[in-house]
Amino acid sequence: MEKVNLDEAFASFSEQWDPRIAGELNGQAVKLAKVEGEFVWHSHDDADELFLVRSGTLRIELREQSDIVLDEGEFVVVPRGVEHRPVADQQADILLFEPAETTNTGDVDAEQTQTEQKYID
Amino acid sequence: MEKVNLDEAFASFSEQWDPRIAGELNGQAVKLAKVEGEFVWHSHDDADELFLVRSGTLRIELREQSDIVLDEGEFVVVPRGVEHRPVADQQADILLFEPAETTNTGDVDAEQTQTEQKYID
Repeated sequence: MEKVNLDEAFASFSEQWDPRIAGELNGQAVKLAKVEGEFVWHSHDDADELFLVRSGTLRIELREQSDIVLDEGEFVVVPRGVEHRPVADQQADILLFEPAETTNTGDVDAEQTQTEQKYID
Repeated sequence: MEKVNLDEAFASFSEQWDPRIAGELNGQAVKLAKVEGEFVWHSHDDADELFLVRSGTLRIELREQSDIVLDEGEFVVVPRGVEHRPVADQQADILLFEPAETTNTGDVDAEQTQTEQKYID
């Protein structure tokens, strides 16, 4: 059993929109992602997804309501089936909580799609 | 769908060792707890438990290995069945991730046992 230091974990990789699993529990994973720019519109049919901002600002665009803007220390749960698009005007570090097998682009096959499960070293 | 600001959520209650549910997803809950002092030794037979420190320092005492000391921005997953005792020498704010129905003292019935599921207002 070892602890994870979020700052060290975020410093251990540099790829954007390429989540790394930092911990697993109860079939769910804590994933860390560096993000900058616009992601793709997508949804996850069978997984709710938590976004928690560690640094920077993440905007979650939604079809049915106003954008949700998350600053450091703020989180939101996007329920399964809800189409959303994460956007970071400047580089941000975010923590995701969702099933380990959830693919980042959900129902969409896009340039940013990552199917491999990568772990923090 | 509404965001949660961790600082505002922690400021909304004052009871120690009395977790509040701040979000739910995939059968799991994000719980916020204020802690100070020694908790009871306990384990959870059927739930892994994540501890993430938001402010202060949390020490997780374990029977089988050295204590794990978590400062701000550090987390650990205590696997199901592993006996542990959280201790905070000074007041700390922590985020827990575990099934919503997990009781704080697990297999132990103690003074601090909270069976009611309380939510952030």
